Order: sequence, then structure tokens, then C-alpha cells
Amino acid sequence: MASPTYQAVSWNDGAVRLLEQRDLPHREHYKDYQGARETADAIRDMVVRGAPAIGCTAAYGLASEAFTIMKSRGIPNSWSDALAPGMETLRNSRPTAVNLMWALDELKPLVEERSADPATLPERLLAAAQKIFDDDVASCKAMGRIGAQLLPDTGDRPITIMTHCNAGALATAGYGTALGVIRGAVEMGRSVHVIANETRPYLQGARLTAWELLEDGIDTTLITDNMAGWLMQCGEIDAIVVGADRVAGNGDAANKIGTYTHSVLAKRHGIPFFVACPLSTIDRETASGSGIAIEDRDAKEVTEIFDKPIAPANVKVRHPAFDVTPAELITALVTEKGAVHPPSKEGIDTLFE
Amino acid sequence: MASPTYQAVSWNDGAVRLLEQRDLPHREHYKDYQGARETADAIRDMVVRGAPAIGCTAAYGLASEAFTIMKSRGIPNSWSDALAPGMETLRNSRPTAVNLMWALDELKPLVEERSADPATLPERLLAAAQKIFDDDVASCKAMGRIGAQLLPDTGDRPITIMTHCNAGALATAGYGTALGVIRGAVEMGRSVHVIANETRPYLQGARLTAWELLEDGIDTTLITDNMAGWLMQCGEIDAIVVGADRVAGNGDAANKIGTYTHSVLAKRHGIPFFVACPLSTIDRETASGSGIAIEDRDAKEVTEIFDKPIAPANVKVRHPAFDVTPAELITALVTEKGAVHPPSKEGIDTLFE
Repeated sequence: MASPTYQAVSWNDGAVRLLEQRDLPHREHYKDYQGARETADAIRDMVVRGAPAIGCTAAYGLASEAFTIMKSRGIPNSWSDALAPGMETLRNSRPTAVNLMWALDELKPLVEERSADPATLPERLLAAAQKIFDDDVASCKAMGRIGAQLLPDTGDRPITIMTHCNAGALATAGYGTALGVIRGAVEMGRSVHVIANETRPYLQGARLTAWELLEDGIDTTLITDNMAGWLMQCGEIDAIVVGADRVAGNGDAANKIGTYTHSVLAKRHGIPFFVACPLSTIDRETASGSGIAIEDRDAKEVTEIFDKPIAPANVKVRHPAFDVTPAELITALVTEKGAVHPPSKEGIDTLFE
Repeated sequence: MASPTYQAVSWNDGAVRLLEQRDLPHREHYKDYQGARETADAIRDMVVRGAPAIGCTAAYGLASEAFTIMKSRGIPNSWSDALAPGMETLRNSRPTAVNLMWALDELKPLVEERSADPATLPERLLAAAQKIFDDDVASCKAMGRIGAQLLPDTGDRPITIMTHCNAGALATAGYGTALGVIRGAVEMGRSVHVIANETRPYLQGARLTAWELLEDGIDTTLITDNMAGWLMQCGEIDAIVVGADRVAGNGDAANKIGTYTHSVLAKRHGIPFFVACPLSTIDRETASGSGIAIEDRDAKEVTEIFDKPIAPANVKVRHPAFDVTPAELITALVTEKGAVHPPSKEGIDTLFE
């Protein structure tokens, strides 16, 4: 596979450059965001999404904040004090994506360090953000290799893999987590057919997954979310691979709303169900899924599609953006350090040793 | 509850008057269709949908065809020959809805009768179509009373009932099948809260169910289809009631795509799952669900919403419009002649005695 021409997140001369994912698949264009506030707004407004991509964006956003501060008022007395509001703003932009917190925590020691030259802090933050970015690409490729080995043998027949939402190059620094596993299978020489669930309400599957897989020349079929069960009943799905926004210490996985439903259907039909995520998505501070905060988003994302209402104006709406799949329904958790099957606290702890 | 001001199907001076459901909830307006071809086109293009409503529409459509023929060329030598093409056109307009075939079969003896005055055939077809219509309303009300009795007791707490697609007044001659059960519960004095699944791709839940329940003043919350599993996991759903497009002799039920998924989730969570339909929807000629033809519809209904593309232009699409829920996942089949729980061939045969 050729390297993709698109890039969800990158650094551009003091600013965070983001692909405007809300305009895909209609238009591929980019915009630069300066400092923590602009970057946090872009995260909350879903210009960029996907837990690993949000982590990279937040890290670059903090570096951009430091460059912006130094440019406007010179070297502050305390970087820690100067960056605290920006750090907080970024941290609050999306509550469920743990990589956001993880990336900021990775940068925190630099911010708090008192022995190094304060004039070089912006550059050091940028280097650390760049390392988070590079490590994410490497992690995705490792996950891809590891996950692809776990996919069932389908003999001479192409393997049909279902995925939900977008856990692809667009959701990470590149290559993808769930789509990384799919790309890994393609790189192994397997013939792969992907079923992409459209993923209401935000349609990341239709807009993003279908777009990036077709850019890569991978055979892709789009369905609405509610068709998944029927295709499983018809024996058309060989495996399911999804990403995660936060995985608890016991392997319970929060991911895009609808993931839980697919795991229940997969169990009924004996279809292997894989969750692919880097270690940075695993939150061992949270013992189980019941401790994961589920973000409720704006009703309009349900009642309007491209700003056109699809429901009566006065209807009430629920909009949980994520759900939690219990570890018992996950065949294997695939990380850059190896797979844990079935997921368990013990297995997960081993990955971190 | 006051009688609704809207009417999905009615007879208007030789023509079939249909509420243009594709423009709901934005605009409530009606159009008249003359003869079999126009009526069949309206059915296929989803101006009207819902198995019982399609049955009524087809019956009125055949009556309209007869009036049209007599007006343009007088009394034909053979009504049977003259109406055969129109009958065939209507029969082929939607393959899964068995009420369509049932309604036309109800009218067939009149068409083939040779002893009655051929000049009165159009009037006799209209009277028979009107009877199908009136019987459907009466059936829905009976189903509503019978189904409402089966709903679980929730003490002082309102009961939360999930429904999929639109099996309401808009899908029938009036009152509805699944929504008839909900209306029956309201008429019993129960405090009812409805969760309406939006039902992609055609959004009948968002556009039609939410609209007609709010018109009736019934508390309704809209969700995307993929949120249903999470709400069940959170313990927020007390019962699920859906309609059906065709029920096989053993109780396997074809209904709008996504229904099967909800039945699997309901089973996991111990939530009662009811299918409400008139006897005319039960097709005992078909022994089990595997014999039910599932209609594949146009890819554009998936890739475009209100004519705006939501996916890359070159993506492949699957679009099965229905799925089959096996009888073992259905708590009870609710008909106007009583409920069968669990559904079985024996129980269903008893209903027809």
C-alpha cells in the first residue's frame, strides 16, 4: 500500500494543522489552530476525532500554546502556571478519550521541570509531541501485524471484516488501530473485504472509513448500523475489528455507540470480536467499564443531518456518544505489545510490565 | 386520545388519496393516485409504507383501476382480463409486505365472479376495499387492547417501551399495530414513555413515529438505532414492541431491518419482545423465515440523505430492507384474535380456527 496523501494531524510552524474531517468525504481541506483554546475547540467540535488522534492533537496543542505564550509575552516566570489554563482547557475538550489525558500527562513533567532552560520549553514540548505522534504510527503498525495474525482462516475465500466508526489513519497519527489490523491483513497478502457500518449519528463509517479505505484501494461495502445483525445471521461476516476510546483495567472497552450491540450479535453468531488500541488507551486507574464516564453530546447531532432536520422539532433525544462492551464479549484486545485473549486484568497488567 | 387529524390512506372520488409520508415531518400534504400503475408507483416509491397500509392502498388501487377502465372504455368483456395487468403491477410493487398479496387475493373472487352485474364491479371492489380498511382499524384496536395487557408491570414508574420503524397509524388504516399496543396502554391509563429508534436508512422512526406520537401527546424520545443496546444495558427499556411485514407459519417474523438485532439484545437483557400484526400479515404458506424473500432496495437510500451524499460516490452498498427475527426470540405474537406466546406453528394455527 502506498502512503496516504491525507494526514489527520500534523505540526505546521507553531500551529496544529488538522484535516477538517467534518467536510469528508465531500472536500479534503486543512486548517491551522493556534494555542490551546483553538485546538480544544477543534477537538470538541470534532474537526479531529479518534482517541489516538485526539492525543496527538492535544500534545501539539500544548506545544503551540507554549510557542504562542513565548511569542506574545516572552518566557513566563513559571511555565507550569502559564500553561495550566491551556492544559485544563485541552483536558476538558472530550471526556471519554483517555489518550487526551494520557498525552497531556506525558508532557506534564517537561512543564514542571525546573532545571532545564525555560527558553527551550516550547521546543522540548514539540519534540515530545512529535515522539507521541511517531510512537502512535509505530504502535498502529505493530497492532496491525499482531491483529492480522489472529484473524480467522477463510481458505481461498476473501475474509470479510466488519468495522464500526472510524478507527483508521484518520483517527490516529496514521495507519489506524482497527483499520491498522485490516491494513496488516492486506500487507500479509490476504484478500480482504470490509463491511463499514455507517455509524450514526456522526456517520464516521460512511464519511471517513469508506473514504480512507477506498483511498487505499481496499474493497469496502457500506451498510447502515442496523443491517449488521442481519449480515451476521446470513453468515456474511468472518470477523469484527473495532477501536476503543478507553479500556478499563479489566478489559471492558468504551467505544463509539453501537459497538456493544455488535459484540452481543458477534457472540450469538460465534464471530470473533477484536478491540485494537494502543496501551495509551488502557486506563488501569479505572477498574471496570462502570467507572467510565460516557459523554452525552448535543441532540442536534441526532435530529439534524448536514443541518437539515430529520425529526419533529419538539422531540426529546438521548445521545450517549459511546457505550461499554464488557470484556467477556471481546475475543481479544490487540495492542502494540501483544494481544490479550480473552481480555483480563492479569493479561492487561502483563502488557505493561 | 382524540382521533388523529392525519390519514395515511383514504378514498377520494375514484382515486386513492395518500399522505405524502416522504415529506414528513416537514410538511403534511396529500395527493390522489388514479388506477393501478400510479398507485403501484406510490407504493414502490414509499409515499405510503407499512404492511397493513400497503394492503389498504392496493385494494383501493384496484378499485380505482376498475373505475378508470369503466370510465375510459366502458364495461369490459372480461373484468378478470381487464384487471389482470393492474393486479400484477400492484402485486409486484413491494415484495416483502404480505398484506399486499392478501388484500388483492381478497378482491380476486369479486373480479372473477361471472354471475353478478359487471356494471357494479367497481362499486363492489370499492366496498370490499373499504371493508379491508375498516377491519384493519378494528384489528389494530383489538391488538392494542390484547398487547397492552401483556406489558410488564412497572409499579408507580412509567413504562418505557422501545419501538423500531413505524408500525403506527401511518403504517395502517389507523391506530397502528405496535403503536396500537402503545396507544392501548395509554388508554388503559398507564403512564407511557416511548423510545423511538430512528430506523435508518429511511428514518421512519425519526420522521413518522416521533411525529405521530407527538401529535397524540405521547412522551417520546428519539435515538439512533445503535443506541438501543446501550439503553438496554443501562436498564432503561421495559419492553419492545414492533410490527411485522410478514410472519411465517412458525412465527418467524420479517420486519424492518434492525428488528432482529433488537430481539437479540432483548434476549440478553431479559426484556420482553412483542411483535404486533393482524392475521393478514401471517403467511402460513411460508413455513419459516428462511422462505421469506427479503427486498433489496436502492443504494442511494443508504448513501444519500435528503438527496445529499453522506459517503464517497464509488462505495459499494448493501441494502436489505428487512430482516427475519426467529420465533424463539419473540416473547409473544400479538394479533386481533389473541396473543401467541411464545409463537409456534400450533399456536398460530389456533388463531385461524
